[in-house]
Amino acid sequence: MKSYHTNKGGGLDSLTVKEHDIPTPGPHEVVVRVRASALNYRDLAILWGTYPLPIKPDGIPLADGAGEVIAIGTDVTRAKPGDRVAATPLPQWIDEPFFPGLDSAAQIGGSLDGLLTEYALLHEEWLVHIPDHLSFEEAAALPTAGVTAWNALTGARPLQAGETMLILGSGSVSLFALQFAKHLGARVIATTSSEEKAQQLHTLGADKVINYRTTPNWHETVRELTSGRGVDVVVESTNPGTLEQSIKATAVSGQVVLVGWLPSDVSTIDIGSFFFGLVALWPIFGGSRVQFHAMNRAVAQSRLRPAIDRVFPFEDAKAAYRYYEEAQPFGKVIISHN
Amino acid sequence: MKSYHTNKGGGLDSLTVKEHDIPTPGPHEVVVRVRASALNYRDLAILWGTYPLPIKPDGIPLADGAGEVIAIGTDVTRAKPGDRVAATPLPQWIDEPFFPGLDSAAQIGGSLDGLLTEYALLHEEWLVHIPDHLSFEEAAALPTAGVTAWNALTGARPLQAGETMLILGSGSVSLFALQFAKHLGARVIATTSSEEKAQQLHTLGADKVINYRTTPNWHETVRELTSGRGVDVVVESTNPGTLEQSIKATAVSGQVVLVGWLPSDVSTIDIGSFFFGLVALWPIFGGSRVQFHAMNRAVAQSRLRPAIDRVFPFEDAKAAYRYYEEAQPFGKVIISHN
Amino acid sequence: MKSYHTNKGGGLDSLTVKEHDIPTPGPHEVVVRVRASALNYRDLAILWGTYPLPIKPDGIPLADGAGEVIAIGTDVTRAKPGDRVAATPLPQWIDEPFFPGLDSAAQIGGSLDGLLTEYALLHEEWLVHIPDHLSFEEAAALPTAGVTAWNALTGARPLQAGETMLILGSGSVSLFALQFAKHLGARVIATTSSEEKAQQLHTLGADKVINYRTTPNWHETVRELTSGRGVDVVVESTNPGTLEQSIKATAVSGQVVLVGWLPSDVSTIDIGSFFFGLVALWPIFGGSRVQFHAMNRAVAQSRLRPAIDRVFPFEDAKAAYRYYEEAQPFGKVIISHN
Amino acid sequence: MKSYHTNKGGGLDSLTVKEHDIPTPGPHEVVVRVRASALNYRDLAILWGTYPLPIKPDGIPLADGAGEVIAIGTDVTRAKPGDRVAATPLPQWIDEPFFPGLDSAAQIGGSLDGLLTEYALLHEEWLVHIPDHLSFEEAAALPTAGVTAWNALTGARPLQAGETMLILGSGSVSLFALQFAKHLGARVIATTSSEEKAQQLHTLGADKVINYRTTPNWHETVRELTSGRGVDVVVESTNPGTLEQSIKATAVSGQVVLVGWLPSDVSTIDIGSFFFGLVALWPIFGGSRVQFHAMNRAVAQSRLRPAIDRVFPFEDAKAAYRYYEEAQPFGKVIISHN
Repeated sequence: MKSYHTNKGGGLDSLTVKEHDIPTPGPHEVVVRVRASALNYRDLAILWGTYPLPIKPDGIPLADGAGEVIAIGTDVTRAKPGDRVAATPLPQWIDEPFFPGLDSAAQIGGSLDGLLTEYALLHEEWLVHIPDHLSFEEAAALPTAGVTAWNALTGARPLQAGETMLILGSGSVSLFALQFAKHLGARVIATTSSEEKAQQLHTLGADKVINYRTTPNWHETVRELTSGRGVDVVVESTNPGTLEQSIKATAVSGQVVLVGWLPSDVSTIDIGSFFFGLVALWPIFGGSRVQFHAMNRAVAQSRLRPAIDRVFPFEDAKAAYRYYEEAQPFGKVIISHN
Repeated sequence: MKSYHTNKGGGLDSLTVKEHDIPTPGPHEVVVRVRASALNYRDLAILWGTYPLPIKPDGIPLADGAGEVIAIGTDVTRAKPGDRVAATPLPQWIDEPFFPGLDSAAQIGGSLDGLLTEYALLHEEWLVHIPDHLSFEEAAALPTAGVTAWNALTGARPLQAGETMLILGSGSVSLFALQFAKHLGARVIATTSSEEKAQQLHTLGADKVINYRTTPNWHETVRELTSGRGVDVVVESTNPGTLEQSIKATAVSGQVVLVGWLPSDVSTIDIGSFFFGLVALWPIFGGSRVQFHAMNRAVAQSRLRPAIDRVFPFEDAKAAYRYYEEAQPFGKVIISHN
Repeated sequence: MKSYHTNKGGGLDSLTVKEHDIPTPGPHEVVVRVRASALNYRDLAILWGTYPLPIKPDGIPLADGAGEVIAIGTDVTRAKPGDRVAATPLPQWIDEPFFPGLDSAAQIGGSLDGLLTEYALLHEEWLVHIPDHLSFEEAAALPTAGVTAWNALTGARPLQAGETMLILGSGSVSLFALQFAKHLGARVIATTSSEEKAQQLHTLGADKVINYRTTPNWHETVRELTSGRGVDVVVESTNPGTLEQSIKATAVSGQVVLVGWLPSDVSTIDIGSFFFGLVALWPIFGGSRVQFHAMNRAVAQSRLRPAIDRVFPFEDAKAAYRYYEEAQPFGKVIISHN
Repeated sequence: MKSYHTNKGGGLDSLTVKEHDIPTPGPHEVVVRVRASALNYRDLAILWGTYPLPIKPDGIPLADGAGEVIAIGTDVTRAKPGDRVAATPLPQWIDEPFFPGLDSAAQIGGSLDGLLTEYALLHEEWLVHIPDHLSFEEAAALPTAGVTAWNALTGARPLQAGETMLILGSGSVSLFALQFAKHLGARVIATTSSEEKAQQLHTLGADKVINYRTTPNWHETVRELTSGRGVDVVVESTNPGTLEQSIKATAVSGQVVLVGWLPSDVSTIDIGSFFFGLVALWPIFGGSRVQFHAMNRAVAQSRLRPAIDRVFPFEDAKAAYRYYEEAQPFGKVIISHN
């Protein structure tokens, strides 16, 4: 079997293929034939060397993937051969309220081997069954961006039916937040930079789309669209410079969920800006296995299908990385392992 | 102006029309021109004398109605002339967690005058603005059944997207619960007694409908439809004899919300029946003003329209009562005051 | 090493000692030298044959115990030699909202081997570290009764500071509920049958104690002690015949938590009795590992010490069972393995 | 009767006494004989002209006070003559999740007349009954600082028994947070600037006190006192320059509650500082009437007594203001109206 390997800061040149034996599962372990995997911004940042968490040297990249269980070790009770599964990206995080901390968090495709491989050896506790109506390519889109969006919408302060959410741009977390928010009965306002993406956002369910190029003071438009009140929740997914306007676009006692942060020259914020609007700032990082389960139940019920921009074959993984970096895709970039 | 008046236990014969002056609002009071009102089971029970709460002698009946503010007293800040409003049925209940108790709860159209009148004098704290997209007839359908259903679904243990809810029959609370649950992203199973109502339930969004006449052990069918697991929530809205099957149809750690209770010969339940399934039994009675607001926000966002069976003119209120009692309507019976 | 073994329905005669080799831990496994264990009502019911869940034939009994890790297998990250630990009684239950169901729930000292042994082989996921200030005897008292009481008070509807809780009798769950409720800032009313136990309940913190022999209509006294309002929460821990009065003693919108149920001739309840008081009935069964952690944090902060009635040596385990069955102890019956 | 009056930005010179008739209550109104009142930082800021919210010209100052109902108007149901009451400082805020916004919030002793008067005319909806065991001087200490602290500890993310809270300094909100947190079963770490105040903080229940003058990098000490983990909640009550250390002292997924903000030269914060620790920033402003009720229930149960620094007679209100401004009191500065 073949698997790809990378090194932190090694750039795309460090992406190499190796040949291995198919692994044998020990107690509580399963072997999954990976059928599709997906790229996240984090996977680029690992290659650039800017990702802040520990990464296993020469490890197999990618947290997101889906496949079929082909073998199980002794004592396994959570899966059986033939099951369609993904891995929970932060596998230590079942549902404890307090995450151990970013530095020490085990991450699939980071501190642990990931899913850009033909066969993966996984602990049974890491597995999550995927919804029946999704192909492997579609299911591979869910783990990182989907669970992060689900946490943002259903975590500490759940979005309620009838409330209004704002998403910024059309990264994958934003797109899942949009689809989930519509399924939860909320109204969605989105910002984007082009008419083409505005159309795509409308197609996915956005109630209103604002072009932030032609409307640079977009927080004023958000206020107008909400009778002056502002939105209940912003999912900030996050380019430097938007946070100030996000806060101004938020209703009294609303919240801005920070689902990622890119350090930049402008990385400070005036405390009065959120204090006087009583706007809570809530940073999150991924989500738990229990949230992954709950999300899948909602995905199954709604027959939701993730937005997919393009699918590359396993042999062209390097091209997939390049496309993901350069093309500003709308939806996930998928690698098919068939 | 004209208003109808009734007496507890007086039967339909006690429903009489009286002529009054249009009232003048005092401080914090408003006068509403009522444009439509609606009947609930409770309004029949008052006439039968079986309603357990205190009722004002010779009072104006009906908690549910909608109209237009035509005059306000001094110090009024929550409404202005021209506003489209309804009244919250239990006006003392703003959002305190503990309700004062059924016996002492002020009720519009019960211990207080109601809305089967051309003009109503209301305290500003009782008012709730109605969604713009609804006609007065539609808005009149919301207060009692709508807020009860909203409380059942979003109160102590909120229904989550992807969960499954069971409703019994097609009373108004059941129908609102169905519509809200679909808007909240849940799956809905309904029971009914006829193919015609099954069609109507499907049209309103029910995922599965079981005919309890042809399937008397319907809890087994519910289990089959949920892979043996049972539903997360039952809205019991309630004929004697269903509760036992409702509990059997509920998943471990699920809950049965009791939204009304008709005393009968068979009114006991075996404790083991819900203990060993870890099924919580949660009785509720209406909902708060804050829940009414939240419901309206969701109704506005979803453009939901209440199911209406038939509309009678104000002059034929007696016929409306009779129809409501005899016809087993699907949706609300409305009285138009125009 | 020695361990005790029993069979469901085998009575105390089936309690026998066997000699084994000290086990060797596999991957993700640890060996614990058990230093103390404790009895619960369930352990009697297993010997009587009345316990409703599956029990491993010739298994090692007792879910409750505490000891020291003496060896770990490969891949273990949650414990190291020297750690002081207990086992979570329902080890599959981490913190998922929906428990798999009583029939299929793995239970330590039930479907799985328990802790009435000198050395126990445990999966690392089952372990919970015990508070530093407790002896092994005290820590052995916590798992079953403590976590059940913690779930009752902090689960679906958390008890709030300033609220009033009622406990019935002085079983172990009641005593933990009493101690936790005081630590959470609540007021506690208790019922008991003797002046001696009344004194002990006061010593543990009860604000008011009612003798149910001299005050058979004790729900009226509870009402008087709460200005007519009733208590916010009852922990029903449960002898047949108390539930009716518990409901009458509960405030509008309060709840009765059912933490155990003994089938009896009188096992039905009138639905109207809880419906018209809007009293929720909430059955629970133990608690999750996350709740065990949270409880331990509170136990450590409060320096709480469990009530212990008597300690027996490991060799006299049979005497401990007999005493527990006959003596109506106040606090746990402990077996010391030293 | 006499009442004091002030003007925004008028300084202490604008504090003047006027003579009025005792007011007559209209419908839903009550007259309260005020027996004690209390000062808050806000009351100084109003005189300095730095308070950001609208203030009634020549209005009666002070939100905090307690007294006795001596007369009620028609239709009053929430109070009767002889009742011991305070006013909820933000009287429109019953328990709605979304506050109308700081600019438009009616405030007792701000946009509305306050309690530095012998007799106050209040709407019945503004009243909250005070705990029996408190004197009027003690009860006057509760409304602003007490309810703010209660909201900080029991609002969006409730402090749980066994968790650790950090308070900064010994302002009134900090002191109430300390007392409440102990009553809720939490551990409390406090910072202060003097050994004398450290002793007082220990007396009120603080588990650990850090002198921030002798330990300028106090966040490191907080980390040490929490085994490196950090605290679960910080109540920031707030001098410029502490927020950065507060965030560093907070555990992963913990939160900093901002209960006031003083604009200063240094009023920006690095976004990465809280993002990478997943620390939520949650600004609050006072609390609701429902929270006031819940707090009083807990105060009554715990027999808690507010810290009072000094009591001035009504005639010396000006001296009370001066003392409050200059003396850095430990506990409230009270004005007795007897």
